[in-house]
Amino acid sequence: MLGAGGGWRALRRCASLPRAVRLRVREALGARQPADAVRVQGWVRSVRSQKEVLFLHINDGSSLESLQVVADPSLEKRDLTFGSAVEVQGKLVKSPHRMQNMELQAETIHVVGPCDIWSFPLKMKERHPLEYVRQFPHLRCRNNTLGALLRIRSEATAGIHSFFQDNGYVHIHTPIITSNDCEGAGELFQIETPRETKESVEKTHFFNVPAFLTVSGQLHLEVMAGAFTHVFTFGPTFRAENSQSRRHLAEFYMVEAELSFTESLQDIMQVMEDLFKTVTSTVLSKCPRDVELFHKYIAPTQKGRLEQILKHKFMIISYSEAVEILKQASQTFTFKPEWGCDLQTEHEKYLVKHCGEVPVFVVNYPYDLKPFYMRDNEDGPQHTVAAVDLLVPGIGELCGGSLREERLPFLESRLQRLGLTDAYQWYLDLRKFGSVPHGGFGMGFERYLQYILGVDNIKDVIPFPRFSHSCLL
Amino acid sequence: MLGAGGGWRALRRCASLPRAVRLRVREALGARQPADAVRVQGWVRSVRSQKEVLFLHINDGSSLESLQVVADPSLEKRDLTFGSAVEVQGKLVKSPHRMQNMELQAETIHVVGPCDIWSFPLKMKERHPLEYVRQFPHLRCRNNTLGALLRIRSEATAGIHSFFQDNGYVHIHTPIITSNDCEGAGELFQIETPRETKESVEKTHFFNVPAFLTVSGQLHLEVMAGAFTHVFTFGPTFRAENSQSRRHLAEFYMVEAELSFTESLQDIMQVMEDLFKTVTSTVLSKCPRDVELFHKYIAPTQKGRLEQILKHKFMIISYSEAVEILKQASQTFTFKPEWGCDLQTEHEKYLVKHCGEVPVFVVNYPYDLKPFYMRDNEDGPQHTVAAVDLLVPGIGELCGGSLREERLPFLESRLQRLGLTDAYQWYLDLRKFGSVPHGGFGMGFERYLQYILGVDNIKDVIPFPRFSHSCLL
Repeated sequence: MLGAGGGWRALRRCASLPRAVRLRVREALGARQPADAVRVQGWVRSVRSQKEVLFLHINDGSSLESLQVVADPSLEKRDLTFGSAVEVQGKLVKSPHRMQNMELQAETIHVVGPCDIWSFPLKMKERHPLEYVRQFPHLRCRNNTLGALLRIRSEATAGIHSFFQDNGYVHIHTPIITSNDCEGAGELFQIETPRETKESVEKTHFFNVPAFLTVSGQLHLEVMAGAFTHVFTFGPTFRAENSQSRRHLAEFYMVEAELSFTESLQDIMQVMEDLFKTVTSTVLSKCPRDVELFHKYIAPTQKGRLEQILKHKFMIISYSEAVEILKQASQTFTFKPEWGCDLQTEHEKYLVKHCGEVPVFVVNYPYDLKPFYMRDNEDGPQHTVAAVDLLVPGIGELCGGSLREERLPFLESRLQRLGLTDAYQWYLDLRKFGSVPHGGFGMGFERYLQYILGVDNIKDVIPFPRFSHSCLL
Repeated sequence: MLGAGGGWRALRRCASLPRAVRLRVREALGARQPADAVRVQGWVRSVRSQKEVLFLHINDGSSLESLQVVADPSLEKRDLTFGSAVEVQGKLVKSPHRMQNMELQAETIHVVGPCDIWSFPLKMKERHPLEYVRQFPHLRCRNNTLGALLRIRSEATAGIHSFFQDNGYVHIHTPIITSNDCEGAGELFQIETPRETKESVEKTHFFNVPAFLTVSGQLHLEVMAGAFTHVFTFGPTFRAENSQSRRHLAEFYMVEAELSFTESLQDIMQVMEDLFKTVTSTVLSKCPRDVELFHKYIAPTQKGRLEQILKHKFMIISYSEAVEILKQASQTFTFKPEWGCDLQTEHEKYLVKHCGEVPVFVVNYPYDLKPFYMRDNEDGPQHTVAAVDLLVPGIGELCGGSLREERLPFLESRLQRLGLTDAYQWYLDLRKFGSVPHGGFGMGFERYLQYILGVDNIKDVIPFPRFSHSCLL
């Protein structure tokens, strides 16, 4: 994560300090050589004062591990407490402690910012539960678990960008404010300017037409796949659903990709699987200690499972097979499994369990269940479209995708039946000018993080949880 | 841009084709060796039929350059037209043409999707003006200029992520829906659910409090800088301003960074300058042909200027110096320059011209002009804050930043005077628990693209221009 020393410039306010090399904690911990005259800045994670020696642990967010500082007790001050910000200058030496490589022998300790420990909600060396720290969205990032989570989220984000870039995809910023609802995928948020809502709602709209927050960038990506062949987007999407649950967010991130010149649904599944495996391997290798924290304290069985999953091909079953499996199950479901009905969470859970608690692709869903843009398989009597969902243990649907209907007559008649021809004239247009077989998928980023880390509540994988602190909504 | 062959799988519908290696146009053009049995897919950019030979140019969006296909005239078909989608199979051979490395000798040409050329708004070999193609947001990406622009936008996006990752910054997804307006930076968009707006506006809000689209992630980033030291975000921001102009967008992208343990405004300026230079160098080296198109046809003087700029340190002047320069100008301004007044666009233009049409940092702005969170310089009688704007030719303000007020008493008294203490209690909290000197900046991404490419209208650097096609808003 850290580059060549960071290039920090020594333009210091305080002329009394001798020139010392500024190091991040991660750099100091990973140093190969001892060094004189090193400066480290960060927040105190522990203070232990003994008769002969003072021990501090300093963390600056560059890694889960803190740097041990060893000092003469004469350097202790009243405001050198847990949570305070300090700058320590001294010698970086090999640590006698087997758990760490280096430690810092302090020559000076400067308390940059004291901490009011009595009102600070985090306590020294306490493992606060996630529900507790969720109450403090502006401070919880200074907790070990959330620190680890956000570093992993950052690495996963970078890994997603790299995966697509390395495979020749063009990144597209699809619109956030849009007038299309893509697929009727959920409740929409509408955009207004305050002036309008104070008066009448029937007034002119800011954009001349009603405008909403995007639920998916798919249709816009299809436009771009018609020029660049392979495109992706990775941005916020919105659903105005009640998100007081542990499974839903009003605002969440989605990775979406679209590919032209596809030859079968297999092409889409291959990219989904490659994306999952590549990004997960990147995260595991770049943040081993951060991931370990989750696999040790939050979801102890997840580590071995994930390693297994990365080694094997994902399973593929058809929707029809899935319904047969469910019908033959000894378990009683609240919703009776029946060909033509949506798979419910209970069904998805049973299917992944039946397959051995591994990710499973379910393909070829009933035509009547799916949105207009999915490609007709022209089969029967059980009429299906070339759709695919990726189900994973504990989460349910992680990714959803399909081949898109590229054939003008098929799309025209379907839109006509739905009375949507006028609204989607531009979409029909795309099928008139060099239309090619294509398809794509979306993956919920928070669900991905929940799955690989084994986090139960989706609010614990976002930087600022909602509903808990109105000013930081 | 392209990785190791892309890993495309040969799962073909059409069993009659022999197994041939699928190559992107960029890969075919860059191949070092001739190859038998190559497949290339894309859209026809030109057809030239001669007595003895048929020439095609195929583009798949992987590069500005198209691949020349040479075929026997017997392979010509009625629907093999400009704009149609084709799959060509044949031999990749050295091209006798000095402008290109390789060409494809076709054995088969399959028209995958025909093009209705009479209604297709793009015409063969025509250089359509940007205003013309802006009318067709769903088709304009198949135009050379927009294709080049979106590839550059994609590379610049990747370059921004890499720059921060390489320098140890943690990426944070700051909230899009928020209840804070950050700085009163502009008109806000309010979020409602349709159900609410149809009834009364005084009803309960979806989020219990009024919610808006973010104008900046700065305050949220400050939270994170207090844990990770160096953080950044790169996402959409919104202003409900009239964006019928060539300078404004209702939805635009902003790169924002925040750094803890800063020692002076110099630290912030250094990151701004490094970011600009690193990303620009990346773009110039990764998309030379795409950039050349702009520097040849859109802004012919920009190339040499940019090269000069990358070689020299950016200039720094103080706000007070800037006002003196403006006062001594022979030019008459609409707004008379006066210490304590905002710099207008006409002033910014004059200043960059005065400095030699190069980027200029202006530092230390009047205290009363700037938002509450900027750090008090405690000077006088001309009282200033540690703020900085980066002005660039043709654009005006490209970046804006400041040191933030980390001292609790200063911030408390300022918020009290503004009557904002309750709303920003959480922000004051941050100053109680290990507060450190810090600062940050934001850079408008579209303005950055406009500047390096010399594009006049900001709507020409986004994937989907607004106000022109309501369905694709």
